[in-house]
Amino acid sequence: SSSTTPIKATLFPGDGIGPEIAESVKQVFTAADVAIEWDEHYVSTEVDPRTNSFLTWESLQSVLDNKVGLKGPMATPIGKGHRSLNLTLRKELNLYANVRPCYSLPGYKTRYDDVDLITIRENTEGEYSGLEHQVVKGVVESIKIITRKASMRVAEYAFLYAKTHGRKKVSAIHKANIMQKTDGLFLQCCDEVAKKYPEIYYEKVVIDNCCMMLVKNPALFDVLVMPNLYGDIISDLCAGLVGGLGLTPSCNIGEDGIALAEAVHGSAPDIAGKNLANPTALLLSGVMMLRHLKLNKQAEQIHSAIINTIAEGKYRTADLGGSSTTTDFTKAICDHL
Amino acid sequence: SSSTTPIKATLFPGDGIGPEIAESVKQVFTAADVAIEWDEHYVSTEVDPRTNSFLTWESLQSVLDNKVGLKGPMATPIGKGHRSLNLTLRKELNLYANVRPCYSLPGYKTRYDDVDLITIRENTEGEYSGLEHQVVKGVVESIKIITRKASMRVAEYAFLYAKTHGRKKVSAIHKANIMQKTDGLFLQCCDEVAKKYPEIYYEKVVIDNCCMMLVKNPALFDVLVMPNLYGDIISDLCAGLVGGLGLTPSCNIGEDGIALAEAVHGSAPDIAGKNLANPTALLLSGVMMLRHLKLNKQAEQIHSAIINTIAEGKYRTADLGGSSTTTDFTKAICDHL
Ligand SMILES: CC(C)[C@H](C(=O)O)[C@@H](O)C(=O)O
Ligand SMILES: CC(C)[C@H](C(=O)O)[C@@H](O)C(=O)O
Repeated sequence: SSSTTPIKATLFPGDGIGPEIAESVKQVFTAADVAIEWDEHYVSTEVDPRTNSFLTWESLQSVLDNKVGLKGPMATPIGKGHRSLNLTLRKELNLYANVRPCYSLPGYKTRYDDVDLITIRENTEGEYSGLEHQVVKGVVESIKIITRKASMRVAEYAFLYAKTHGRKKVSAIHKANIMQKTDGLFLQCCDEVAKKYPEIYYEKVVIDNCCMMLVKNPALFDVLVMPNLYGDIISDLCAGLVGGLGLTPSCNIGEDGIALAEAVHGSAPDIAGKNLANPTALLLSGVMMLRHLKLNKQAEQIHSAIINTIAEGKYRTADLGGSSTTTDFTKAICDHL
Repeated sequence: SSSTTPIKATLFPGDGIGPEIAESVKQVFTAADVAIEWDEHYVSTEVDPRTNSFLTWESLQSVLDNKVGLKGPMATPIGKGHRSLNLTLRKELNLYANVRPCYSLPGYKTRYDDVDLITIRENTEGEYSGLEHQVVKGVVESIKIITRKASMRVAEYAFLYAKTHGRKKVSAIHKANIMQKTDGLFLQCCDEVAKKYPEIYYEKVVIDNCCMMLVKNPALFDVLVMPNLYGDIISDLCAGLVGGLGLTPSCNIGEDGIALAEAVHGSAPDIAGKNLANPTALLLSGVMMLRHLKLNKQAEQIHSAIINTIAEGKYRTADLGGSSTTTDFTKAICDHL
């Protein structure tokens, strides 16, 4: 029941292993008959003065036009006077919520079974303000900014997500016992939104305690919402519970219905071009993009094909203890479709 | 071979379960013939204007005089215009390094075996500056401060600790890819100190990646040193790997040879006074205090008695799945001495 007029989506293959895993996504999507027309954009070799970054103005515009995209890893080129590529995307496109589901993959054993967590990270402010200065030699400050606007929209997104995905509980993660004003404002916003969702159990958990409880018993949590840096930390911790960033997808949500799905692992330059990379995180991110587009049938087909291929264990890349190439693993997934 | 002139040490039993677990320490120390004379100080019921906190000036002075102490949990009384008790102690006594060893207890099974980690946390600045303000309604800032002075002394402490404790590796944990100036200064200091310890392997690890690797494979780490908030987060995560804050000791190191050992768990008001509390964290903190005093023989005797009691499994408190009272568990430890 999917549309036959292709939907245009921006594709940032990215650097390092990016192009190889992006190729895997293209093949799997083709095998599943997904009607997507990719609008491919590479990281430029020069700083674009319009964006002050190695991302061109055209590539940002592509996401704004298509309203949907998929992004591989981008390593920020060494040098001065320009911004990190990932941060440029988040700030320029106003990608205010970063959603990272972490769930145990059947057949891939870690120390934890049945993990099923959703981290929702404020993605535009907090410790990522970029405001730092030296007061006197040997004394430096950085400024964390929390606004009602950004806190409300991410809290609203988290509760709406919980409700529409049949989730039972939202935990707001904070350190308001120390940062009473900043994290306090974040919590006030969560409190306010929680009142509109009496059917969702709501709790506040201090970040240190949250990390301790996550490693002891992740089943205590369901949806977690938090300021930027805590989200950065906790989403990686949660990914670790199920095997790491090579297996976990993410999707960035912006204003006006924009969604940029993203594999958040690194560009792994050491294995780039060797047909060894694991495309799972980018594939699962692609599935998140399809769900966002309401292409649910194909999303579920592709999701099952990935999960089943990993569960069977015959074709696995080296990071999962196997010896398959990226192309063999991709072919195995296509064969499941 | 321990001295027979008793050494004076400050004891803060603290609130909630504090007095019960402090009683346990006193009994175990007596059973082991430790020549300590406790100088006991309770949290006051009124704010002392000289400290602007519920800690009296006399109790702070006691630590400065004795240079050594042991502290139970302290819940900051609700109210306004005074400071957190824990932070008052750290700042007034200049307790610049918080050392938290996390190791697997034989016979107490968690998902992780053979964990053996030391977290060393900068304890006086960073995100704990207390500097926050509202810029305009709905926009608040908090300020993180990193100084060369505090970073150097904690880095120096960490490398010296590694060397004197036969440790092989120090990992400096940071987020300098985002906070280039503040965390950058912290790393510069670690780099500088590391050069003086060529025999210790030194690495820098971004905090998000560190959390992911800790839950995947804690054996990758040995000694970890980091700014205040990261230390707060990572030390709790590490405690979670081996069973939680009820089982892990800590010791705060200050200038002029001051050491204040501390159980960092909460005061558990729900079970206070019921003879149900687990004194392990405070007991193991007491062992750290004894090692600091070079009372190594008695430290090891008490340590073994605690470990063996838990390993045998006959006497365990409810938090460890047993049904022993605090006094029975304490008696079992004394019987091992
Ligand atoms: C690469 C880095 C700037 C980034 C972040 O800190 O947000 C990454 O860790 C992530 O989580 O996407
Ligand atoms: C109680 C709280 C202020 C404290 C902290 O954040 O440092 C605690 O979590 C700790 O680790 O000792």
